[in-house]
Amino acid sequence: MFNFNEKVVLETEQSGLDIIKKVEQLVDHICQEGYGNLFFVGIGGTFAYAKQAESIVKCQSTLNLHVENAADLIALGNYHLTDKTIVIIESKSGDTPEIVKAVDYVHTLGAKVIGYIGNSESILCKKVDHVIHGNSGPYYFWLSVALRFMYHHGEFGDYHDLMQEIQHLPSTLLNVQKHADLGCEDYAEKYKDAPIQYFIGSGNLEGWAYCYAMCILEEMQWMRTKFVSGADFFHGTLEVIDRDTCVILFKGEDNARSIMDRVHNFVEKVSANVTVFDTKDYAMDKINEKYRGLLSPFVMRAICQRISVHLEHKRRHPLDIRRYYRCLDY
Amino acid sequence: MFNFNEKVVLETEQSGLDIIKKVEQLVDHICQEGYGNLFFVGIGGTFAYAKQAESIVKCQSTLNLHVENAADLIALGNYHLTDKTIVIIESKSGDTPEIVKAVDYVHTLGAKVIGYIGNSESILCKKVDHVIHGNSGPYYFWLSVALRFMYHHGEFGDYHDLMQEIQHLPSTLLNVQKHADLGCEDYAEKYKDAPIQYFIGSGNLEGWAYCYAMCILEEMQWMRTKFVSGADFFHGTLEVIDRDTCVILFKGEDNARSIMDRVHNFVEKVSANVTVFDTKDYAMDKINEKYRGLLSPFVMRAICQRISVHLEHKRRHPLDIRRYYRCLDY
Repeated sequence: MFNFNEKVVLETEQSGLDIIKKVEQLVDHICQEGYGNLFFVGIGGTFAYAKQAESIVKCQSTLNLHVENAADLIALGNYHLTDKTIVIIESKSGDTPEIVKAVDYVHTLGAKVIGYIGNSESILCKKVDHVIHGNSGPYYFWLSVALRFMYHHGEFGDYHDLMQEIQHLPSTLLNVQKHADLGCEDYAEKYKDAPIQYFIGSGNLEGWAYCYAMCILEEMQWMRTKFVSGADFFHGTLEVIDRDTCVILFKGEDNARSIMDRVHNFVEKVSANVTVFDTKDYAMDKINEKYRGLLSPFVMRAICQRISVHLEHKRRHPLDIRRYYRCLDY
Repeated sequence: MFNFNEKVVLETEQSGLDIIKKVEQLVDHICQEGYGNLFFVGIGGTFAYAKQAESIVKCQSTLNLHVENAADLIALGNYHLTDKTIVIIESKSGDTPEIVKAVDYVHTLGAKVIGYIGNSESILCKKVDHVIHGNSGPYYFWLSVALRFMYHHGEFGDYHDLMQEIQHLPSTLLNVQKHADLGCEDYAEKYKDAPIQYFIGSGNLEGWAYCYAMCILEEMQWMRTKFVSGADFFHGTLEVIDRDTCVILFKGEDNARSIMDRVHNFVEKVSANVTVFDTKDYAMDKINEKYRGLLSPFVMRAICQRISVHLEHKRRHPLDIRRYYRCLDY
């Protein structure tokens, strides 16, 4: 397999898993002290991760959770944000400007901040009230934060069982990548120069489809993409899909699958360029069937990492270069 | 002015204004009886209107408000939805499938539904618990519902003053259209065949930019567009903007204007095809300056109606035709 290092994949996933104990200790402490409500605050990719986690919370919890885009929060405020609020943020670099400003802003209101931060020497490490260090597997962070707060809220009784099962994720996701690779390479070869591609996802994959189309393909490949949710697809975007339009579906296994089935059925009728990435096509042998829906974002992210590897090579466009971001003053 | 009937514009806006008294009576009644929380539920354009109203609520109110896409709500549910919930919906046709199903769904949980419905013979008129008839000026509905609930919640003390001032909206918006027309025609002429256009909006114009790009230009003109919020623009989409990329900014006057200023400053540096529609360019002589931000969505909608008139003609593409929507079974 091209540009594939099993050891790195396993280690990266394991280091994602390893933060869960720290998340638990922190959330336990906060729940013991008491809090008013929760704010997940992100921007770009971290906003998308926060939305993925929100999708899981709101369909099985009455946690008082708000999700905000950092730049919007700074500009517009949110009346629910108080000195009883726990704010959760993530920043790999540790100096994402909008997140730094958001942390300063919520501190003026007396809120406390938990941060999942990559660079341990960064400004955000100094600013936040509670740090979890790490930069691999952000979804381990968002999901475990969400589920641990739910657990203390008397919800998600499967918490301990799930946390046992996901110990198998590193080897499971390694196998997902091995099985996905050929399809990912085919996709990359066929659509590497597509003028525009439509990414569609729903439920807990809506955030990921949004993130992959924008934060990876636009930002890291300078490819034109448009994300639309499966629900809204039928209220506008469907009309621009014709035989030659490239459509990519991210199908997962939560209850939004029925929405994606409807999209799938439609697009196959009108486009000859449909690609479906479906978590259902992948074995998760050591993990209980009932958690497949909850874990679909991990599986889809693993698949997309293989797409990125092939696009990077076939387009001869390193993922690390930027045209403007952090290169130009604006 | 091309395809412009002053009388129709004034009558349409007035009929939007005329529903406010009915909204007030209804909301007063509900607040008197008591309720648990509010759900704004929409799909496509009505979801975008709900989001516009939410933008106003969350930066000046602690109302317990949830905004849901109807299809997602049906598939995934929301634990905050109970028999104490008041659900607010809109449907011009009165038979939007996802909204019909959402009303049935929330009724199974015992929630009550207020509907703003165009067709008085429609199935939704029979299904909802409280009907407001009408199909012009949906934003009059969403804004007055939001503000009246806030008023009863002890917030937005300017309520009565604003409701006096907006009596001047019909004549104000007529003048906006007259002053906007030439710029709208120029824009339509220049970009009628653009391969893709990027629409960017923030704050209470984020929903409208999303709606205009998707529910009007994609659905009614089959033009390729992509919406991105001003906040997220800098986390991906910026990298695909080059000299020839068409970028359209919707600038309003709420506190998100600073975000749009940042976008504006950036895109002028890298694209030679930037069009800015700015509510600040339009007089609102009879309306207090302090309400301009709150009313920006009305102004931008009036401008966009002139864009649509010109695009429809220059593209020889009637706004009423659909390729698939309600033409194909899916």
